Formats: sequence, C-alpha cells, structure tokens
Amino acid sequence: MHKRELRKADGRALTLFARVPIEGEIAAPSPSTTPHAPNPHLRWHPLRAEWVAYAGHRQNRTFLPPAQYNPLAVTIDPAHPTEVPAGPWDVAVFDNLFPTLAQTAHDPPDLTVPTEPALGACEVVVFTQDATASLGRLPLWHIALLFDVWADRYRELGARDDVVYVYPFENRGVEVGVTLHHPHGQIYAYPFVPPIPARALEQQARFYQQHGTGLLESFVAEEVAAGTRVLYNGPHVAAFIPICARYTYEIWIAPHRTVPSLDNLSADQRTDFARALKTVLLKLDGLWARPMPYIMAFHQAPTDGGPHPEAHVHLQIYPALRMRDRLKYLAGSEIGAGVFTADTLPENAVADLQAVAVNVDG
Amino acid sequence: MHKRELRKADGRALTLFARVPIEGEIAAPSPSTTPHAPNPHLRWHPLRAEWVAYAGHRQNRTFLPPAQYNPLAVTIDPAHPTEVPAGPWDVAVFDNLFPTLAQTAHDPPDLTVPTEPALGACEVVVFTQDATASLGRLPLWHIALLFDVWADRYRELGARDDVVYVYPFENRGVEVGVTLHHPHGQIYAYPFVPPIPARALEQQARFYQQHGTGLLESFVAEEVAAGTRVLYNGPHVAAFIPICARYTYEIWIAPHRTVPSLDNLSADQRTDFARALKTVLLKLDGLWARPMPYIMAFHQAPTDGGPHPEAHVHLQIYPALRMRDRLKYLAGSEIGAGVFTADTLPENAVADLQAVAVNVDG
Repeated sequence: MHKRELRKADGRALTLFARVPIEGEIAAPSPSTTPHAPNPHLRWHPLRAEWVAYAGHRQNRTFLPPAQYNPLAVTIDPAHPTEVPAGPWDVAVFDNLFPTLAQTAHDPPDLTVPTEPALGACEVVVFTQDATASLGRLPLWHIALLFDVWADRYRELGARDDVVYVYPFENRGVEVGVTLHHPHGQIYAYPFVPPIPARALEQQARFYQQHGTGLLESFVAEEVAAGTRVLYNGPHVAAFIPICARYTYEIWIAPHRTVPSLDNLSADQRTDFARALKTVLLKLDGLWARPMPYIMAFHQAPTDGGPHPEAHVHLQIYPALRMRDRLKYLAGSEIGAGVFTADTLPENAVADLQAVAVNVDG
Repeated sequence: MHKRELRKADGRALTLFARVPIEGEIAAPSPSTTPHAPNPHLRWHPLRAEWVAYAGHRQNRTFLPPAQYNPLAVTIDPAHPTEVPAGPWDVAVFDNLFPTLAQTAHDPPDLTVPTEPALGACEVVVFTQDATASLGRLPLWHIALLFDVWADRYRELGARDDVVYVYPFENRGVEVGVTLHHPHGQIYAYPFVPPIPARALEQQARFYQQHGTGLLESFVAEEVAAGTRVLYNGPHVAAFIPICARYTYEIWIAPHRTVPSLDNLSADQRTDFARALKTVLLKLDGLWARPMPYIMAFHQAPTDGGPHPEAHVHLQIYPALRMRDRLKYLAGSEIGAGVFTADTLPENAVADLQAVAVNVDG
C-alpha cells in the first residue's frame, strides 16, 4: 500500500492510499477555506452513565451545496472544489468538515453535569473514485486495500494521546439516514471506550479470566462447528448470522483466532477478511436484487495502552430491512428498555442468504 | 376509576376502564378464536450481556386484516369482530395477539447460548374509542384516568411471579414504525430488569448510598432551579428538556420527590403528571403544526419484591424529528458504539417548545 499525506486550505488532513505509488503534483482541494477549529463538547448522562456528544455547529451548516453536488467526487474544476483531488488513488481519508469529535475541542461549558471537550477525530473514508460503485462490488484487491487503510487509521489515530477507541463504520442507504450515495464510510476516534464495546470487552475479559481463551474465539468455533448459520468459512475468517442475532439478517465476521485489531492481521488474513466481507455484502444485495441498507460496525481493542488479550477484532452488519419492503424499527422495547424483539429465527433467515449465489472473484 | 374484566374466545384478557360504572351485558370480541398459546423464547447475547426475545410467529402472521380494518375500533358487526366492544368505557387493555413475552412460554430450545422461556406479558392499551384523537388532545380527566390504568397494570402485572419489570410505552407515528393510527400504547412486562433501566437503577442506587437521596430528585431540582430548560413546573411534577438530552426535543417528566411508581402517586399527583404530559404533547404537536412522531417510555421500580428506595418514576419522550422534515437517524455511532451525537444544544431547542402556547384545560 502506498500513502500520500496532504493538507487542505482550512487545515484539515487528507490522505490518499493506492496500490501503486502516487506520483506527481497533487493539491488537496477544500470546499471550505476558513481555518478548521471545531469545538464540540461532551456532557455526562447520569442515568445512562454515558457521554453524549454535542456539536452545535452541525445543525445549521453554513455549507449548503447544490443538490447535485457530490463532495466525494474528484475535483474537476478548481473553482468548484470538492473534498478529494483527481489522481491515481484508490481510497481517500479526510477530516470531516462537521465533526462530532475533534482534536481542537477545548473549554467545555461549566454545567451541573460533568462536561469534557469532545476530543478525538471524525474521518471520512472514500472507498473509491466511482460514485456508482458499492463496497461489496469493489474488486477483491480493492477491499483488501481498504482493510490496509483501516489498519493504518487504527495505528495512526490510536497512537494519539486523545484517542482511546478507533471505530470504523459504514452507514449505507437512505433508510439509515445517508444522503450521499458515493461509497464511503467513517471513522470515529473516541476519547473514551464507548458503552457498547466497553460492555463487550467486559464480558470478554471475564471469559478470558475464567477460561484463558477468547469469548469470541469460542463463539466463532461454535458457529463454525454448528455450521447451520455460516455464510463464509475461510482459512482465517468466518462469517455467519449469530445465534443471538437481533436483526433478521445480522451478520458477524471475525477471525477464527483471537486477534486484537486489523493492524495485527497478516496480508493473507486481511484478504480472507475482505473475501468474507465481499461475500456477505453481495449476498445481502442479491437477496432481493436491491441494495441492502445497513450499518456496519468494526470493533477492535481499545488504544488505551493497556494489554487487551480479551479483545478480538470483528465486524457486525445490521441490515435495516427485515422483509423486502419492511424496515426493522427500533421502538419502545429496543430504544426505551434496551430489549430487542426478533420476529424471525436466525436459523431460518440464514437460508435466504445461503441461497444467494455470488461470484467473489468476478 | 371503574374496571370490568372480560375474557376473549381465544383466552386472552380484556379489561375495560371508565370514569363511570360499566353496566350491562358486554361480550369481549376477538378476531381470533383458536386458543392463544404463544411460545416465544429468550437467547442470551454473550457480547452485549443481554437477552434477545424471539417470537418466530410474528413475521408470518396468519392474521392479515384488510387495509382499512382497525382492530382497535369498537366492534359494530359481530360477524367482523375487532379487539374491543362497544360500551361506555374510556380505556381498554387487552393481551397482544402476537406477543414477544407470554405467560404460556415454555420449553425454550437447547442451544449453545443460554435460553429461557420469554415469560411476561405484552398488553395493548387503547387510549380512547376515538380513532382520530391523540393522547395529547384527550381531556385532562381522560389522561388522568390513563395514569390510573397504568398504575393498575403496574400493580396487577407486577404481582405476577413471572414479571419483574412493568414498562408502559407509546410508539407514535409511521416514522417509528406504527401502522395503526388509533391512539394506543403498549405495556411490556419483562421477566428480568431490561438493560437500560437496569443501568439507570444501578446509578440511582449508587447515588442513594452516597447521598441518602435520589439521583433523579436531585436532577429534577437542578433543572427546576436552572429554569432554562423547563416546560412545565407543577406542584408535584416537572417537565423539561434534560441538560443531557440525546434527541433534539427530548423531554423528561418526573415528580419532584422520589416516588417508585405511578401506583404510589396520589390522585392529585397523577393529575399533575397528566397535566405535564398534556402540556408537552400539545407543545410537540404545535411546534410545526403537525403530529410529532415519538417514542414515550415510562420507567418505574422493578417488581422483584426488593425495596427500591433509589427508584423514581419518570417518563421520557424521544421525538423522532430534529427539524421539521428531518429525522434523527440512529446510525453508526449510536447503534454500533452507543454514543449519541447531538446537533443541537438543549438550551437552544427548548426555546422552540417554550414558544408554543397551549391550552391544557380546553
């Protein structure tokens, strides 16, 4: 993987990644030129015992692009700059113009609940220059390169003092609130371990203490042994609908063995991970011959400096549809009480995806 | 409050509530006549450390009513039974035909994760006979009666051996998945304390041990003292956008003093609670002169037999819109990591609602 680091006129970082060296003169375009100094803050929620991030500048954006404007397309006319330049890059990463977390955060308001500056980072990951592509339809080498990029960002962001948890994710489809269809994901780098991975790591640590082995390693082995819910079983990585799926077509992808982060995976392992991901994404899109809206979440070890023998890198995909034209709504039980109610059994739902033939090498 | 208990042909309970005695012959109609014996089960999610409820019978319902059919309207023609009879009742409560939790649950499957029968209850609460009404537009006496009904259900369901947590809620609007517009709510009676109230109770118990007083009592007092975010301040109850709001127009309503459940409130206190609720619901609907979609969640003390000096009954409303035509989507950060990102400050959002004049006694 080759990498080229640039700086935008407003101070934001732009990094280009490619299979081949990125030569020649390349300038970083920017739709904004005023110095970038966002100042979000955190407030403590005493009943949920969690931080809520406030980025008051996001709602009323001064930056209102025309409807057809795609800020993730390469800049053609320098008079109308987008977020990325033309050039021989495959994947681009830049600082979000309206971040929820930022290294510049300072002096949070003094309130009756604890507050903190919302330190950290929010990055946008442009998956490809092709606005009409999708993550699953990218060639295998391109998805594998993306795993290298995610590993790079884990390493780089995780090395920062203000970052404790590096979290890549993708929101896909209008059903989950996406208005920009150019294939892209995001990376949030939090100044604390967020509640959901914190709870998962707590369970994993307890299991590790009791058994001397990983909770997720044992879970993956059980899924592979059962076989019934498996969608992909490669030499290094498996994909399946978990036995405790909350969403009808929920999919988990994880290495067979306990590995804390993408950065600790070999090239072979990353390629197997990429193959698993491409397989399940093509199955999801093939299910009803329509792009499946989903949230994809990547969990890895915290970057808090501590050893995390319990942590096991994994990816979870939450498809928003439970039937062809029916969304799974999170309502009273899920949102207010935290109890998911599933209308289908994972054992039944998986058959629908197993029946979708896909060509990963195509 | 007067109460009349009936039984449907399929065995489900129907209870009618009214301001005046419900006299005369009334039969409980039922769109289903086969004996009701749902058998949902729970599976343990080892990473989230929570139960997921599986009601496999819900997705492919054999019961497919015509589009215009309203099962919550009173039965006019006995040949086409709905869920509620004609008669002088104000509020009706019946067992959900497709429950996620049921007293009949038994023999859960034997799996590689722990399983349990999904015991408990799912009740539908028909707020009124008027299909065109809304909770906020009901007369004050009617909303106060509904508080009596919720208190009754807390007491009755909470007394059951298989019920540990009684949770009334309302999902309102197509934006949160509601297809039935007749004003109604639901009550889930869980066989365990759900994750969200469990965490809140943990915080409250810790605070109570440290300070000898209630966390929420202190929180409400701080909101009332600050005054800036207050929407209603009655003799017994206050309503406000909390300082740590996660949704733009999120509203909490709670008594000033620590009271574990609605069942422990006096008639005066319930009327004040009803007045607070009516005030904020009218403000939400008045904000953009359109019905505000929301999830409303009621939290009370667990009914596990233990003393809960830390518990403080309260209601939270999560409006789905953050701007007139813009939904707040829960995406990668909220769903995958558990970190809410707010685009607005509660101090600013509250002014929009404070500006809406409402007539609660009209």
